[in-house]
Amino acid sequence: MDEWAASGVTADPSRVHTEGRIARATLEEARDAVAALFRVRPRQIVFTSGGTEAVNAAVWGATAGDGDPGPIVLAAVEHSAVRDASARAGPCVIVPVDRTGRIEPGTVENALARTQAEFGRVSVLVHCQWANHEVGTMQPVAEVAAVCRRAGVRLHVDAAAAAGHVSVDLGELDADMVSVSAHKLGGPPGIGALIVRRGLRIEPLLVGGAQERARRAGFENLPAAIGFGAVAAAIDAQGVLDREMSVAWRHTTRLLEVATAVPEVEVFGDADDRLPHLICVGVRGVEAEPVLLGLDQAGIAAHSGSSCSSEVLEPSPVLEAMGVDAERSLRLSVGWSTTDADVDAFAGAFGPVVEDLRALRS
Amino acid sequence: MDEWAASGVTADPSRVHTEGRIARATLEEARDAVAALFRVRPRQIVFTSGGTEAVNAAVWGATAGDGDPGPIVLAAVEHSAVRDASARAGPCVIVPVDRTGRIEPGTVENALARTQAEFGRVSVLVHCQWANHEVGTMQPVAEVAAVCRRAGVRLHVDAAAAAGHVSVDLGELDADMVSVSAHKLGGPPGIGALIVRRGLRIEPLLVGGAQERARRAGFENLPAAIGFGAVAAAIDAQGVLDREMSVAWRHTTRLLEVATAVPEVEVFGDADDRLPHLICVGVRGVEAEPVLLGLDQAGIAAHSGSSCSSEVLEPSPVLEAMGVDAERSLRLSVGWSTTDADVDAFAGAFGPVVEDLRALRS
Repeated sequence: MDEWAASGVTADPSRVHTEGRIARATLEEARDAVAALFRVRPRQIVFTSGGTEAVNAAVWGATAGDGDPGPIVLAAVEHSAVRDASARAGPCVIVPVDRTGRIEPGTVENALARTQAEFGRVSVLVHCQWANHEVGTMQPVAEVAAVCRRAGVRLHVDAAAAAGHVSVDLGELDADMVSVSAHKLGGPPGIGALIVRRGLRIEPLLVGGAQERARRAGFENLPAAIGFGAVAAAIDAQGVLDREMSVAWRHTTRLLEVATAVPEVEVFGDADDRLPHLICVGVRGVEAEPVLLGLDQAGIAAHSGSSCSSEVLEPSPVLEAMGVDAERSLRLSVGWSTTDADVDAFAGAFGPVVEDLRALRS
Repeated sequence: MDEWAASGVTADPSRVHTEGRIARATLEEARDAVAALFRVRPRQIVFTSGGTEAVNAAVWGATAGDGDPGPIVLAAVEHSAVRDASARAGPCVIVPVDRTGRIEPGTVENALARTQAEFGRVSVLVHCQWANHEVGTMQPVAEVAAVCRRAGVRLHVDAAAAAGHVSVDLGELDADMVSVSAHKLGGPPGIGALIVRRGLRIEPLLVGGAQERARRAGFENLPAAIGFGAVAAAIDAQGVLDREMSVAWRHTTRLLEVATAVPEVEVFGDADDRLPHLICVGVRGVEAEPVLLGLDQAGIAAHSGSSCSSEVLEPSPVLEAMGVDAERSLRLSVGWSTTDADVDAFAGAFGPVVEDLRALRS
């Protein structure tokens, strides 16, 4: 991104002049790198302004032009973008999850069978996230894809939480649309992608230009696309993802040990079959916000619940769907820049912060 | 933007930790600067991924939730984002323009009166661009706003071509929604804004998060917002816009003189009441593409028609609406970095390029 800024080229990639053709070639190089990371063809990549736009575009693409679309099947643990965009588009059938937040493919199959009876028509779309964004639980996305294929229903996979943190091989996955976000995997904000099955034509959410093969109108965010391509290439380099996963797993395993050593702290989500970089714990007897502020004073930036659910701290629909106490969750994540010293800082701060708050309340 | 990147902060502005609060304060500083340039309050600014998203969001905001919205009134010289988003939302009433591409407020008033008779209901939205993006003609936006106010119909103003190039004082203008794009005024790509009248509540186009006061979901593009704020502050500094306008006017006046000195080259749009930085000319007897390629060989990046209409060179609906030959237009624009030497380069190249092409054809 710095090299591009230094080059001084700011041209429109749709133009025929030299600067435009340089911009076009650079954009397509970025697309190639993103496509390579996800094991798809470059033309399947539709760059968007981020994961939220990709999700909104997926729901729009599956339901637009149909004045009365069939029901959408999803779990309540899906990201708020998936839930809200679906709720707006048509009737939704919510499938249950277990205590770890995992979707069961059989419940999706049952829901698809039920929609015919309850709504008089087949489902128009199923959502299944690759992994949960709040608790890290991996989802049985390949099995859900097989269920959808048998039923002849389209599948959208929100892979924003998982992409770049575990192997997301979309060449292997039988999905129609997949959403990803660059900033969630170390890239810049302001860019994501909707990855579309070969041969699938969808109505664009943003209209008014032929960019992205007429699937997403608007002047291309080339600097951000370059960053997305660069981070995709970095992650896709031989051995990098395995090493990152291993380091993240070591950090989060220690975070879990430290956290659960404090009395009445429990793990939310699947502690084993989860994203390597993300864990969620519940702390009995204290609210999330003072814990976050106490950790902040120790130099630790953590959060409660979803990163997009709200600007205020509301109960998390994900944890509610899992049947756990939504008021007391703490989401901890590590990244490529996290060090052992960062984990040590958490280890030193977490117990005292919780104990002080509990002492204040008793 | 460089300073922000060097700071290393990449936090979510919705978080309570220190890094999140720094990000929030930085985002709001950028919003303040953008609001100041357009003479509105900061909370009227809804950051979007660009002008195209802002326009789509404006049309959605005016028509969503209404299964059968009333007709939308617009001229064919509006940007393709305005035309396409409107055509998708409901029936459209197209008002004529004159030979310079100018909208006549009386025709808008007539159209609003007619919609009741033809569609059995009042218009839901009127569009009026601040200035035309292809030929530079200024529009009578204040008069159209007065017409809309009298009729009780909402007005959306696409100010993307004008903002930053002429004074766009929205405190003075009685509009409901205004769209702008940062990259059109020297800012980064990937950001724009929908500026919403105080007290007007609109349905968001992108849902799934409470960002931008629940008017635009999605992780904020803070680096781009910083760039938008910085360019807004630079333009809003004492005397800068007047100086930029004066220099741009001098450059484009000379471009017009040079171009029209070549036989059978005519000016499209209003040569006097126009944007200072943009002109459009028609060249009889040659097609646009070889002219563009000839100019490119001389180091001049120019374009034909709209910057968003298509990845291919199609006839321009703007020029068609004006009743001029759409196959032969050449859009020339200057920016803050344009020098006298750049204009000299055009002066040296344009005549020979056109003459060579005409000689080839005869």
